[in-house]
This record gives sequence, structure tokens and C-alpha cells, in this order.
Amino acid sequence: MNKIYNPKPDTWSSILERPTKTVDDIEATVKEIFKEVQKKGDSAVAKYTSLFDGAILPNIEVTKQEIDEAVLSVPSDLKEAIQLAKSNIKKFHTAQITAQVNVETVEGVNCWQEKRPIQKIGLYIPGGTAPLFSTVLMLAVPAKIAGCNEIVLCSPPDKNGKINPAILYAANLCGVTKVLKVGGIQAIAGLTFGTETIPKVYKIFGPGNQYVTVAKQLATQFGVAIDMPAGPSELLIVADDTAIPAFVASDLLSQAEHGADSQVILVSTSKKLIDAVELEIQIQLDVLPRKEIAEKAIANSKLIFVENDKIALELINEYGPEHFIICSEFDDFYCNGIYNAGSVFIGNYTPESAGDYASGTNHTLPTNGYAKNYSGVNLDSFTKAMTFQKISKKGLQNIGKAIEIMAEAEGLQAHKNAVTLRLKAIENEK
Amino acid sequence: MNKIYNPKPDTWSSILERPTKTVDDIEATVKEIFKEVQKKGDSAVAKYTSLFDGAILPNIEVTKQEIDEAVLSVPSDLKEAIQLAKSNIKKFHTAQITAQVNVETVEGVNCWQEKRPIQKIGLYIPGGTAPLFSTVLMLAVPAKIAGCNEIVLCSPPDKNGKINPAILYAANLCGVTKVLKVGGIQAIAGLTFGTETIPKVYKIFGPGNQYVTVAKQLATQFGVAIDMPAGPSELLIVADDTAIPAFVASDLLSQAEHGADSQVILVSTSKKLIDAVELEIQIQLDVLPRKEIAEKAIANSKLIFVENDKIALELINEYGPEHFIICSEFDDFYCNGIYNAGSVFIGNYTPESAGDYASGTNHTLPTNGYAKNYSGVNLDSFTKAMTFQKISKKGLQNIGKAIEIMAEAEGLQAHKNAVTLRLKAIENEK
Repeated sequence: MNKIYNPKPDTWSSILERPTKTVDDIEATVKEIFKEVQKKGDSAVAKYTSLFDGAILPNIEVTKQEIDEAVLSVPSDLKEAIQLAKSNIKKFHTAQITAQVNVETVEGVNCWQEKRPIQKIGLYIPGGTAPLFSTVLMLAVPAKIAGCNEIVLCSPPDKNGKINPAILYAANLCGVTKVLKVGGIQAIAGLTFGTETIPKVYKIFGPGNQYVTVAKQLATQFGVAIDMPAGPSELLIVADDTAIPAFVASDLLSQAEHGADSQVILVSTSKKLIDAVELEIQIQLDVLPRKEIAEKAIANSKLIFVENDKIALELINEYGPEHFIICSEFDDFYCNGIYNAGSVFIGNYTPESAGDYASGTNHTLPTNGYAKNYSGVNLDSFTKAMTFQKISKKGLQNIGKAIEIMAEAEGLQAHKNAVTLRLKAIENEK
Repeated sequence: MNKIYNPKPDTWSSILERPTKTVDDIEATVKEIFKEVQKKGDSAVAKYTSLFDGAILPNIEVTKQEIDEAVLSVPSDLKEAIQLAKSNIKKFHTAQITAQVNVETVEGVNCWQEKRPIQKIGLYIPGGTAPLFSTVLMLAVPAKIAGCNEIVLCSPPDKNGKINPAILYAANLCGVTKVLKVGGIQAIAGLTFGTETIPKVYKIFGPGNQYVTVAKQLATQFGVAIDMPAGPSELLIVADDTAIPAFVASDLLSQAEHGADSQVILVSTSKKLIDAVELEIQIQLDVLPRKEIAEKAIANSKLIFVENDKIALELINEYGPEHFIICSEFDDFYCNGIYNAGSVFIGNYTPESAGDYASGTNHTLPTNGYAKNYSGVNLDSFTKAMTFQKISKKGLQNIGKAIEIMAEAEGLQAHKNAVTLRLKAIENEK
């Protein structure tokens, strides 16, 4: 752990620098697989599934029978936990539905805005040791509320051609329309171009390794939208002497176990707290099954002492953390002043893992400083805001002159004509 | 003009194909200028301003005096028109403000969502023959409502080192914080990296030529967000015998005058209307100052006859037009059924140019099929949705068990520990 006391503002950006990854070498591989999937469809997908996942599958679409088996095999306490999480996520995202915005800007000029669902979406759920069924909930639940009518989920099969049952259970529970056993670059390429089996979608959501991240970026060059740019997960905690060191340490470690490149930062106005948290981390770290991973992330972590809360807030806004925990006497000060953070957790009894799983907020959040300019996934991520307008004759008379003048000043005569013709017709009716 | 009768659905995508541009040759230039601006700052910007705009400027920041001169030189009828447009845009975008979403998902678990402004934004306004002061309104007005505190506008100077007075007038009227005389790739690079004079921003908005478009795409690789991917402007009109052919023709032409690559499409259930519109286009085209440009776009335009409105709607949703005008007896059918369009104009007295300038809706819209997955610029484009949560002891007891079970099932023990520690502490208090 690196303890840093009173860093000067001009050193903040280097202290808070994130680990950057070079993707140039990956890009060539991704482009090649994209080309092949675009040209050869399912057969290219099968080739790479065999190569990367070691599975040869007669059929990549998960069958009704496989879903039924999965539903039976998931333990009932896990089912109940998933159902509670789903219920909370549903409540919070349903509350995000916005009414039509309707304004008569001047008499006879009616303008409105409506959100309409993105019709076809793809969800990517990684495989591997940690089956992220929680991410299925975070993506499929709002997609369903938004009204997306085609929700395709791709996840890599294991060597036996299976997807983790909890993922299938969650997908079925949340109304995913199709589950496909395909992962990695070939999954993203399939969703981008469409194949005989994989539907082409308009937007792709979900986490993934470096290959998936680069593939999602490449997909945007072919007209597909993505949820947000990805990066290693990160947590920043601001804490003072009202915080409980063991709790703070447990939150820092829950971030650290994600990966060796996870970012873990504590900012405090109390040197005493910093020392206490440092000690607690050592105690708790020793018994973690993912100790090796967490240890590496913790080695790079920063424990930063600053003179006062004002400086702390400035530093935090400059960093823009994905997750931001506030355990401070002055939590209102931080809540009101934080502009750059993905999701904010307030108080000693609000661990980050609550938001990761079950409180109702979304866990797909902007990392890598993108909290400065991107929203986390929310209901609107699955919709587009469309505008409508209907103008009466009276309305056109009210704004027509202004349009003519502006169009002429911009040198666009045909824009002006479209109004002039109509105004003349109205005039002639009299 | 190409008249097409009853095209089969499997030919739609080729009939409606958009002109694609290759950007590979531009990319190298853009990358080189980015590198140089990143390294050398203002001096690199000055070099390219001299090279591309033919202007050598002692100072690229527009002064108070230049603003004052511009305000004096804009004719008063244009000022009034701009003020009316601004007032309507302000009304419509202010109505888009969303209240905090606050939900207690289960007892003691409080979750809320708030929109907070993106703090630093850049607006790009092209120079050239058509000074797009209307775009200044469309971007700066919602930015101001959202509460962005740094609004930087870049626009290329003419050979005399000047920016069009109407652009300066609009920028000043709308509260732009800084106007810089810099255009093209060097402007986007400056906003991306920051220079001695140009502030680094978090999100870049605004139209531009191919170079600017590629530069904006490249900016996203350096952590900057952009409004949306760009493409040539497009208009699709659906019209039947209730439409007025001269009006329809005038709208098609107002789209066509944007550029030779503009997309102009008419879909109709009436052959009679198609013929009448074709005739009207010839009559109106002849007197346009931008006839040469419009003629080229019109030559590529499509007049498509289909058997019925159901087929028409399917075809339109497959295309996903940026601008969609409905002049039909069945306007409700189209309004309710359209899922993929940027902005919708309803009725004979609602020309597209109303939305381009003064009705109140935004004219920065998704083109090139992006209406399927992107919103047009709206108030939320200038904000990020952030989530907050505060959980009481009681709340954690209500959801803690579910979090523990899910974290364990995902193999994330430290996530579980963060809850277990707290639940034990609560238990021990008893």
C-alpha cells in the first residue's frame, strides 16, 4: 500500500493515474475474426468456439430443455436471492420511466419528446470462474422494462458445451428471448453482423476481457452502439474518524479481488484512520480465497491523507471514481459536491457489494475516468429519445418569419422556400 | 430521380443503402495532427490554422471587443429571429429536466438517481459559406440549462481572422464561456488534449466535414465523449393524396441542398402523388441558388411506391431516417408505429426547416441509420445519470443474506465478507 500525505494538486493526476493497457496487438486478431465472421457466419463462429473454448457444438442455441434442467439445478436459496435482487432492480429501474415531454412552444407549435425502446439488443456475459448471473439481472431487467423486443444473450460454453445454470436461470427469469453459447470476439462479431443463428443487434451491453472490450469498440465502426467504454473496476472511499476501519478495509478488498489491475483508493482527513485501515486490510486479506489477486491490487492501492474535506472533494472529482463510498461526518457535503462518480454509497452500512447485487441500482458503471462524461447503465440506456412536432397554420405563421430570416442568413434558400410556399398558401386562403 | 414500384422486402436494404465514405486515407492525417497538437500545443494549432485556414493570428481567443462589434453588426431582424428560436429551444429543453428518482426498494434501502452536468464541454461550429449559428443555439442552450460550467466553442477563422458575427452573437447570447478561432482537426485535437489556450473538455458536440468527423471519432480513444457518430443528412417523407405536392417537393429540396450526398426519399401509397411531386421538384429546383448541389442529391433520390401503409411503415423502420415527415391521412398510425427516426414532423404545415431552426426541438440528430440506437441531442446529452444509495442497519439485514449468497455463488468471497462483517456487528450490538 502506498501512503501519501498531503499531495500537491499538480501531482494528483500522476498519483491517481490508472493502469493503461495497450491494445494494438489485440486489434489485429479482433479485426481478423470480425472479417471471417462477417464472411462465413456460423462456420467461423464454430471454428473459434472450438479454438478458444475447446467446445464443438452441434447447436449453439440453448434449448428449452437445457433451461428447464438449469432451473432445477440451481439451489433454492440462490433462486430466492436472485428473485429479491431482481425485484429491487425492477423497482428502481421502473421508477426511471419518464413521461412524454409535451410543450406548445408558441401557439400552434406542438413539440414533444418520447423514449422508444431500442428494438434489438445483445447482452454479453463472460464465462470463466465467476459466472456473472448478477450482470444478467442488471442488463435484462431494464431492457424488459424499456420494451426491447429482441434480447439476445451470448455467453461462452465450457468444455462440455454448457453455460452455468445460474446464468440460464437468471436469463429465463428476466425474459431474455434467446441464449447462445458463444463467447469472446466471435460473439461480438456475430451480434454485429448477424449470422445464420446469431441475430444482428443494434446495441451491445456487458463486460468482458480485453478481447471483448476491443471487439465492442470495433463493433461501433459497423453501426452498432455499445453501453460504454470499459476499463478495470475501481473504488474510492472517503472516510474520517466516524468510519469503521474493518468495514472500510472489507470494501477496499472487495474491490481488490476483482483483478490485479483493480484500482483501490482511500482518501482521508485522518491519519489514524488510514493506519487502522491498513492494519485491517492485512488481517482480512490473509483469509481470502482470491488472496493472490487481491494482494496485487492492494500493493498498488493508494491511501491518501489530505488536510480537509474541500481538498478531498476536489481530488475525488478530478479522479471520477466508478464506485464512491462516503463514510464521513460530512456526507451531505460530499453528496452534493460530487460531480464525477458512477455510483455513490453513503454511510457505514452501505457496502459496495449491496449495489453490485441487490439494492436495486445498476452495477454496470463508467470506469477509467468515464464518470466525467458517461452515465452508468440505466433505463434510458435501452431507449432512444425521439422528438415529434406538429405545427398548425397559425403556428407556422407565428414562427415562419424567423425561420425564413435564419435560413436565408445561413445561405439555405430551399429551407426558406419550404416555409415561404406554405405561408403564401395560407395567405391565399383568406 | 429513381421511381421504384413495390420493391420486395429483400431488396429494401440495397435500395435504401446510404452512400458510404472511406475514411482510411483521412485517418493518417488526423492521427498525425493529433500527435503534434498533443506534443506542441498552441504552436501546432497555429501552424495548421495558417495552413488550412490561411490565417495567422496573434491571439485565437475572441475578445470582448470582437463580441461587441459582432452584436452591433448583426441586423436587428436576424437578432429577433435568433431570440425567438432561442426562447423556443429553451422552453422545450427546460421541460426535459427530470426530477430525482427516489425509491426505497425494501425497508431501509434507499436508492436514488440524479442527473448532474458534464462539467466541461466543447462545441464545434463549422465555418465556410453557411455560418451555422443555429447549431450554436441547439448546443449551447441545453448545455446552459444542464448546468455545464465550461462551454468552449471552436470555429475556424476566415482569411482575415474573423468568425461570422451571427455565430459570435448567438454564442454570447447563449452563455458560451469561451470562443476560440480554431477549426478542423486541430480544434478537435485541442479540445481533446488541452493546450495553453484551448481547455481540455470531457465531451465534444457539433457537426463538421469528414476531417472533423474522423477527428471526433479519434478523440473517443483519448477518453473524450462525443455527441454521436456523424453521417450525411437525410429526410424520408411518407405522403398520400392528402399531401400537397408542392410542399412535399419543397421539403425534399431543402434536404437536397445540404450536400450532394444528402439522402432524399419519398414513400407513398399514391402513384399520382409521386408523379406530382416529381414535377414540382423540377419546377422549384430551377430557381435555387444551391441548384448544383441539390441536383446531385435529387439525382440519387428515391421515390418509392408501396401497396399499403403497413408495408410503408416497415420499410421506414428498417431505414431509420434522421428526419421523418408524415403527410398522411393515417398520421397516428405512423406516429405510434415509428421506432427508428431522429425527429418526426407531422402534417402539411410542419416543414423540416421548422425543426432546423425555431420550433424548439433539437436539430442535432442521428443519421446514417443511427436512429435505431442513438438519441438526438437533448438535455440529457449534457448530463450524466448518477446513482446514490444509503442503507440503514435494518436495510442491510433485509438484503444482506441475498448479497452473501449471490457473492458466494459468483466466487467473490471479499464481496460477501463486506456484508458478513457488518451483519455480525449489528448482531453483536444486541
